Amino acid sequence: MDIRQVKAYGAASASAPLEEITINRRAVQPHDVEFEILYCGICHSDLHQVKDDFGGTMWPIVPGHELLGRVTMVGNHVKDFKPGDLVGVGCIVDSCGHCEYCDEGIEQFCEEGVTFSFNSVDQVLGGHTYGGFSKTYVCDEKYVLRMPAFEDLAAAAPLLCAGITVYSPLKHWGAGPGKKVGILGIGGLGHLAIKIAKAMGAEVTVFTTSPAKVDDAKRLGADHAVLSSDEEQIATYNRQLHFIIDTVSAKHDVNMYLNLLRHDGTVVLVGLPPQPLEIGAFNVVMGRRSFAGSNIGGIAETQEMLDFCFQHGITADSEIIPIQDVNDAFELLEKGDVKYRFVIDMSSL
Amino acid sequence: MDIRQVKAYGAASASAPLEEITINRRAVQPHDVEFEILYCGICHSDLHQVKDDFGGTMWPIVPGHELLGRVTMVGNHVKDFKPGDLVGVGCIVDSCGHCEYCDEGIEQFCEEGVTFSFNSVDQVLGGHTYGGFSKTYVCDEKYVLRMPAFEDLAAAAPLLCAGITVYSPLKHWGAGPGKKVGILGIGGLGHLAIKIAKAMGAEVTVFTTSPAKVDDAKRLGADHAVLSSDEEQIATYNRQLHFIIDTVSAKHDVNMYLNLLRHDGTVVLVGLPPQPLEIGAFNVVMGRRSFAGSNIGGIAETQEMLDFCFQHGITADSEIIPIQDVNDAFELLEKGDVKYRFVIDMSSL
Repeated sequence: MDIRQVKAYGAASASAPLEEITINRRAVQPHDVEFEILYCGICHSDLHQVKDDFGGTMWPIVPGHELLGRVTMVGNHVKDFKPGDLVGVGCIVDSCGHCEYCDEGIEQFCEEGVTFSFNSVDQVLGGHTYGGFSKTYVCDEKYVLRMPAFEDLAAAAPLLCAGITVYSPLKHWGAGPGKKVGILGIGGLGHLAIKIAKAMGAEVTVFTTSPAKVDDAKRLGADHAVLSSDEEQIATYNRQLHFIIDTVSAKHDVNMYLNLLRHDGTVVLVGLPPQPLEIGAFNVVMGRRSFAGSNIGGIAETQEMLDFCFQHGITADSEIIPIQDVNDAFELLEKGDVKYRFVIDMSSL
Repeated sequence: MDIRQVKAYGAASASAPLEEITINRRAVQPHDVEFEILYCGICHSDLHQVKDDFGGTMWPIVPGHELLGRVTMVGNHVKDFKPGDLVGVGCIVDSCGHCEYCDEGIEQFCEEGVTFSFNSVDQVLGGHTYGGFSKTYVCDEKYVLRMPAFEDLAAAAPLLCAGITVYSPLKHWGAGPGKKVGILGIGGLGHLAIKIAKAMGAEVTVFTTSPAKVDDAKRLGADHAVLSSDEEQIATYNRQLHFIIDTVSAKHDVNMYLNLLRHDGTVVLVGLPPQPLEIGAFNVVMGRRSFAGSNIGGIAETQEMLDFCFQHGITADSEIIPIQDVNDAFELLEKGDVKYRFVIDMSSL
């Protein structure tokens, strides 16, 4: 198979910094779309995988799974995209396409396993996939999203992972008028969850460990914002909420939040704490409550989310950086010191 | 308020044995039903509360919340019961009657808190409620169940807690034809869960730590039974089950079972392990799975369950004992050495 050499930013090991490297991309195949990457968001799971926090990282690793850009070439069987189109790619770039999960449009749970945009075995070229910290991307058209004409295109990049990660459970658990939704944590995921839940019509209560973020939660549209150390105020929400989107990626106490749920309510984890979380039996048994998880969303739902966000003027609060600052950005991200998403301007590469 | 002195079996402290004592019962009020107790099941939560495992036990404690018998007297406003009727009482003997939970028929989650048949504050007589290890019971007619004419009446007593505890989640999560249901643990709860899930039409797979119970699971009607130490065989169920009823009352690893669920599947805890259970984020996030709980059921659903079990010939596999053997029975129960429910013949008192 023909290959092309492409500039990228990657790390050679868990302890190495990200630096400029050259990677191989496949030449465009009949069903492929190739695009020049304009912007790529930085997500906590980029950091987790560069640091090998989940194990199984393949080196060198080129992270980045919130990438968008302009089509440069399409394969001769591609009908829906043409050069010049604005497109995006999120987490998923391949799946079996014929299992019941793929049939249901929840490719993220594909029985044979999905191929992620980086750090997955590359079924086409061999080796492993390289993400969006690079100049170009090549992907089967089925996994390419059509980007609406967002005014601030850079700030739309984080929708491709952070956006769908919160949109999908908000929709699945029924956010809308009359529903009281909690959002736990205000970061890349949480701040988009506030905006999307409000746009869906829900009453939104935010819980944050940071006093500085209480006001910011309201600026972002939350109806109520509570400091999670304020046990007295927290207790006034006991049995009040229909469900809670839990965006926290570190070990934390879920039990306090289970008790804020109405009967049949759910705490939905979308963060990925590396350590297990402890659940007290009474906190789920009383009220028939659940602790559930949700993982990104399927391709069709991701397109739906992009269109929804465009219609409601929702993008991420983003700090645009050149690729040369990416190691510093990872450090700030680790400290939680970003409001609320770093996006790399890939023209800097 | 007039009171009557009644013989019972109770414990004076967490370290004291159960022995014969005398308790007060209220005289029959206009809406009350009084009945002579014929049989009373022994449930693990009787033992937990006698040992004060959950804290808050009030002494002396008279356990027993699976009691049935024959009506001896009714209040002058009672229309639906008359002396001679066979009746039962389960966990719930009072609730506020006007909150949205009571309105929905899920009194077990009453906003103002339910009164349990023992070890609850007694809203009528003061002091605390005394359970079914006694000669008689008095209870508002709204919380009295009509017992169908089970051939083996003693073996029907455990339905009043164990039966509804598994019936309610089996129904709520949709056990029926085409559904693959797992049952974790074969004890008082688990063995009834097998029988009821089969009667509902589900395909039932049982997981047990005890080699001796693998065959017994099949005798009880399970389609498949797997030793939970057999990791190879367990793995063949990966992503196969729609939901799992987890009846285990001790600390255990839930993660292995979460991985047996299809997408959107649920492990439903009905046991009450005193220690928290650890859940790995990936095990819920992948497949949008849930770890939920369920607690008994409302009064109307308990009546429905009794009628369902009568129609399908379901009772508990029971060992009938005299009240004088109750301390020995508690010891055997603690070791899990009972197949599968002790029931006290109260005529022995």
